[in-house]
Amino acid sequence: MNIGYIQMAPRFGHVEENVAKVRLMMDDTTADLLVLPELFNTGYFFKDFKEVAELAEKIPDGFTCRELAKSAKEWRCYIVAGILEEADGMYYNSAVLIGEEGYIDHYRKIHLFDDEKTYFAPGDKPLKVYDIKKAKIGIMICFDWIFPEVTRSLALMGAQVICHPSNLVLPYCPKIMPSRCFDSKVFAVTANRVGKDVRQGETLSFIGQSQIVDPEGRIIKRAGADNESIDVIFINPKDADKKTVSKNDLWADRRPEFYSPLTMDAEALAALKPVDAQTNLSVDKYDII
Amino acid sequence: MNIGYIQMAPRFGHVEENVAKVRLMMDDTTADLLVLPELFNTGYFFKDFKEVAELAEKIPDGFTCRELAKSAKEWRCYIVAGILEEADGMYYNSAVLIGEEGYIDHYRKIHLFDDEKTYFAPGDKPLKVYDIKKAKIGIMICFDWIFPEVTRSLALMGAQVICHPSNLVLPYCPKIMPSRCFDSKVFAVTANRVGKDVRQGETLSFIGQSQIVDPEGRIIKRAGADNESIDVIFINPKDADKKTVSKNDLWADRRPEFYSPLTMDAEALAALKPVDAQTNLSVDKYDII
Repeated sequence: MNIGYIQMAPRFGHVEENVAKVRLMMDDTTADLLVLPELFNTGYFFKDFKEVAELAEKIPDGFTCRELAKSAKEWRCYIVAGILEEADGMYYNSAVLIGEEGYIDHYRKIHLFDDEKTYFAPGDKPLKVYDIKKAKIGIMICFDWIFPEVTRSLALMGAQVICHPSNLVLPYCPKIMPSRCFDSKVFAVTANRVGKDVRQGETLSFIGQSQIVDPEGRIIKRAGADNESIDVIFINPKDADKKTVSKNDLWADRRPEFYSPLTMDAEALAALKPVDAQTNLSVDKYDII
Repeated sequence: MNIGYIQMAPRFGHVEENVAKVRLMMDDTTADLLVLPELFNTGYFFKDFKEVAELAEKIPDGFTCRELAKSAKEWRCYIVAGILEEADGMYYNSAVLIGEEGYIDHYRKIHLFDDEKTYFAPGDKPLKVYDIKKAKIGIMICFDWIFPEVTRSLALMGAQVICHPSNLVLPYCPKIMPSRCFDSKVFAVTANRVGKDVRQGETLSFIGQSQIVDPEGRIIKRAGADNESIDVIFINPKDADKKTVSKNDLWADRRPEFYSPLTMDAEALAALKPVDAQTNLSVDKYDII
């Protein structure tokens, strides 16, 4: 199976141009699965609600989805792409999954970064795993990566390849994703953008370095920091099915009855009290000291 | 606050010698918290049940605990140390927490590695966080590290420093722990052993490289691969309280309602079915293609 990413620099607000560029980059691709950056069609650095509203589109009936569906059909390829979504007057930082026969589903980013909270509603759709025949895939968007619960949940649900449309501005993700993949024995395709969004005198720079990591935590493909590129690599998704280290089965050996803090909310966690080392003593047992 | 580890090579089965060595290494220590390796008093490579039974001791009444309590009192130090425990005819790979006034509590390894399953019962005590006045600490043992749920749970429960007695034979842990600490903004002290256990013609080699990682994921102290050492470093445990990246609060921004797979057991996870990309289509919406 061939998987890949497109790393590109969208021009802010020029949806038709950005989509056309990506469709051109996709020409003749041998990829079975291609991941595009977050908000690849609009750019990232919104400055007011009005432009969010103007640039957002319906999924799946909007321009970008329909155009991507043409490429997916033409090149017989699954595409995961970040799109600004409008639905019922709400705006979401979404990623659509499109196959050669059309739109399949979409995900809405559940962990919004920084000023995204001003413009986007937090995702309200569950993390899902999709069987696209050659592989089982999961989707997360950019900052979702920093919460280890996300890749772990997707892998536990059966994902072999995590598709990760991104607009990274901080340097951490490319360094940490290998450990996510090692932990859960899963592939990850982080498709980042490059270039800058310069808006009203403010600049946001994106770090590129799109990458594909294998289940051993090795970076098997990485793009440059500032050039556009499409990179495709052959993998065997079944390499993600061996959840073993030495004689241990990392899935069967989990002890979820001990992991309850992971699904507690902030309030419940704050209510947990540490054991007081002073009041928990059994000093009387040490008559020797 | 001064935290540190002792990296040493136990001689298999020579409990008195190993404990005496560690007490000597601890002499004059300025550490407020010192982490010792897993099974530091007995060695690791058991070959039959009989020797497990002979070397195991009661906690807190056994020899090792009582000896460590003397050092803890003398040097006014908390100690976290790996000990082979016998309790009600069961044997546990345990870690004891001892303060200057004596035994406080102990933890039993919940994720047993490799042949440990032959000899030890899986841990049955919950992950806990202890307030030792200068810091809040959590305890995990060796292979527990590979399950990201453990450090994450301890950090979510309020741990500022994770104490990690280890007997590492594989190369992964020192490389992955920085990402665990980065993710959860927590310190970790991995105290590994060095040397070999040669038993009945078989050899097990340990990788050393004990280390202390800070909440930014930086290795701020690391021991060699084969020398014994005690290393102590000054830290501010409050550095673990800033759970932020950019404008995001990594604790408040969690969406635990989406993380339910994390606390599912293997059977429940296996029953989850991926979305079939073929039957989930909305092809009719794309009359253009």
